[in-house]
Amino acid sequence: MKAAYYSGDKSFTIKEDQPKEPGPGDARIKIAYCGICGTDLHVYHGSMDARVTTNRVIGHECSAVVDAIGPGVEGLAVGDPVVVRPLSHCGECAACKKGYIHVCQNLKFLGLDTEGAMQEMWTLPAHTLHKVPAEMRLDYAALIEPTAVACHDVGRAKIKEGEDVLVIGGGPIGLLVAMVARQAGGNVVISEVSDYRLEVAEKLGFQTLDPRKVNVAEEMWKRTGDKGAEVVFEVSGSKPGIETMTEAAAVRGRIVMVAIFANKPEVDMFKFFWRELELMGARVYEAADYEKAIELVVNGDIDCETLITDIQELEDITKAFQALDGNATAMKSLIKCS
Amino acid sequence: MKAAYYSGDKSFTIKEDQPKEPGPGDARIKIAYCGICGTDLHVYHGSMDARVTTNRVIGHECSAVVDAIGPGVEGLAVGDPVVVRPLSHCGECAACKKGYIHVCQNLKFLGLDTEGAMQEMWTLPAHTLHKVPAEMRLDYAALIEPTAVACHDVGRAKIKEGEDVLVIGGGPIGLLVAMVARQAGGNVVISEVSDYRLEVAEKLGFQTLDPRKVNVAEEMWKRTGDKGAEVVFEVSGSKPGIETMTEAAAVRGRIVMVAIFANKPEVDMFKFFWRELELMGARVYEAADYEKAIELVVNGDIDCETLITDIQELEDITKAFQALDGNATAMKSLIKCS
Ligand SMILES: [Zn+2]
Ligand SMILES: [Zn+2]
Ligand SMILES: [Zn+2]
Ligand SMILES: [Zn+2]
Repeated sequence: MKAAYYSGDKSFTIKEDQPKEPGPGDARIKIAYCGICGTDLHVYHGSMDARVTTNRVIGHECSAVVDAIGPGVEGLAVGDPVVVRPLSHCGECAACKKGYIHVCQNLKFLGLDTEGAMQEMWTLPAHTLHKVPAEMRLDYAALIEPTAVACHDVGRAKIKEGEDVLVIGGGPIGLLVAMVARQAGGNVVISEVSDYRLEVAEKLGFQTLDPRKVNVAEEMWKRTGDKGAEVVFEVSGSKPGIETMTEAAAVRGRIVMVAIFANKPEVDMFKFFWRELELMGARVYEAADYEKAIELVVNGDIDCETLITDIQELEDITKAFQALDGNATAMKSLIKCS
Repeated sequence: MKAAYYSGDKSFTIKEDQPKEPGPGDARIKIAYCGICGTDLHVYHGSMDARVTTNRVIGHECSAVVDAIGPGVEGLAVGDPVVVRPLSHCGECAACKKGYIHVCQNLKFLGLDTEGAMQEMWTLPAHTLHKVPAEMRLDYAALIEPTAVACHDVGRAKIKEGEDVLVIGGGPIGLLVAMVARQAGGNVVISEVSDYRLEVAEKLGFQTLDPRKVNVAEEMWKRTGDKGAEVVFEVSGSKPGIETMTEAAAVRGRIVMVAIFANKPEVDMFKFFWRELELMGARVYEAADYEKAIELVVNGDIDCETLITDIQELEDITKAFQALDGNATAMKSLIKCS
């Protein structure tokens, strides 16, 4: 079987590997599709070599079919279509003991800290698998992992029917957050600075605001009758995004921090006091987020057709990363692994 | 009757005024004691002249006895001992309509935006009054307003029995937050840099940490068996405080922003993501916070004797502000108004 190893410095090496026998509690799955995540692009750029090493099969946004089952695995059969929740928790730390296993203090992320999905066959702990309906398209199923991220983000916000929601940043995760928030009853507006992404957001039926043309926060207050946005998702990771999130939020507004800031941005703490704002960090997902994501993709609440902008063969993985890197008119690229 | 008018540039002018007759819905109260708040010190320094003007009776942390009642006021009798919840909301804005009247978008704060308590008699809307038990000491009752602030802060944190709590900053509000958090079941540690305040915190029975001597966050993780603080109150308003709050917080830790930051500090957003932290702003109080505060002061959960470090006559108000200003060994100063 073929496996694509990240080999440092924007390169992948295709190797011929032997499929691994599943040990106790494991399963071997045949990967159908694997999406390229923003994190994978960071790996590609060499920013995570210390953690990932330069000889690793990466990838975690996959759909697959069960190929073999190890001893002691129940509720799973060869041929079942599945997706992977790529988390491995320790079960021992303070977070695990409280049930927050997805933010385990010793969390391992499959496809970064261990081998991942960009190979034909992947042998991994069976507890990471979620079954999907038999009739499901497996290219669409590759979007379940990022959709579960969005479900987790939206879950943190506890959106109520009819609430005004601002999503700052209209990339793949921003659009998924917007779609999940809409399905949860939110009245969603997307703020975005790229013409292409604005166009996609509008095609998906969203109201949009372009910070190059309007003051997004002022516009949100105007549009909501001097109330502001009950919920704000900061997905842009930008300085203007950090400013807009506090300015646009209503009294008691909830802000979900989806973007990952490597540096410490300046945050308007006075507004947190003045309007009693709340900020929640959100990281990966829990099992329930996966079940919700499967339901949303199956029901068509997630427009996978529009989000998937490229599909490449495993052999062409380097080309796929090159094509996606810095491409202003791409959303989600998939690798066809088998 | 005497009234102390803030007259600009660190000065007060004592004037002889006529007590006002209470109109419909109003009451006239005879002020017993009025505490000097940090906000009052800001006024004294001239930082709030634009809002407060330089001809205003300030003060809002008072205890009093009902002196006269206007038409239409029910449930209140002359002679009742009371405290004032010094907030006036509009009833019309989006926040009011949602029931968040204490963070009304047009909130007026009595004693800043209107006349206040540093006078012998104060005529004000009767709905701002909370009755206190007849046997209560009125000097202690003057601490109910800042205690209600602390009750509101602790309420925002939803402390559960046995949770580890870090209070960053051991001034009057920090100590009140610590006492209320302890009564709510928290295992409270106070971080403070002043020898005097550390001493008071220890006298009140709290564990303390001195950032001049230890890394407070590391120490919290060590003391909690690699778990961190479930709840952090940032009361210091300092740059090291903002750093410690994210470092010391456990996975899913709740941080309450009590301090008022005029500038935008740098905040570690990565830790919000990584540990799914939550941050809540907290401002003033709701009616229930007052009822809780009255109960805590009556029950002795608040050590008023230790907190009150000075009492001066109304005529000596300028002296009282001078004595408090920059005094490293003072906690709460009261003005005896009648
Ligand atoms: Zn991902
Ligand atoms: Zn763990
Ligand atoms: Zn005050
Ligand atoms: Zn209002």
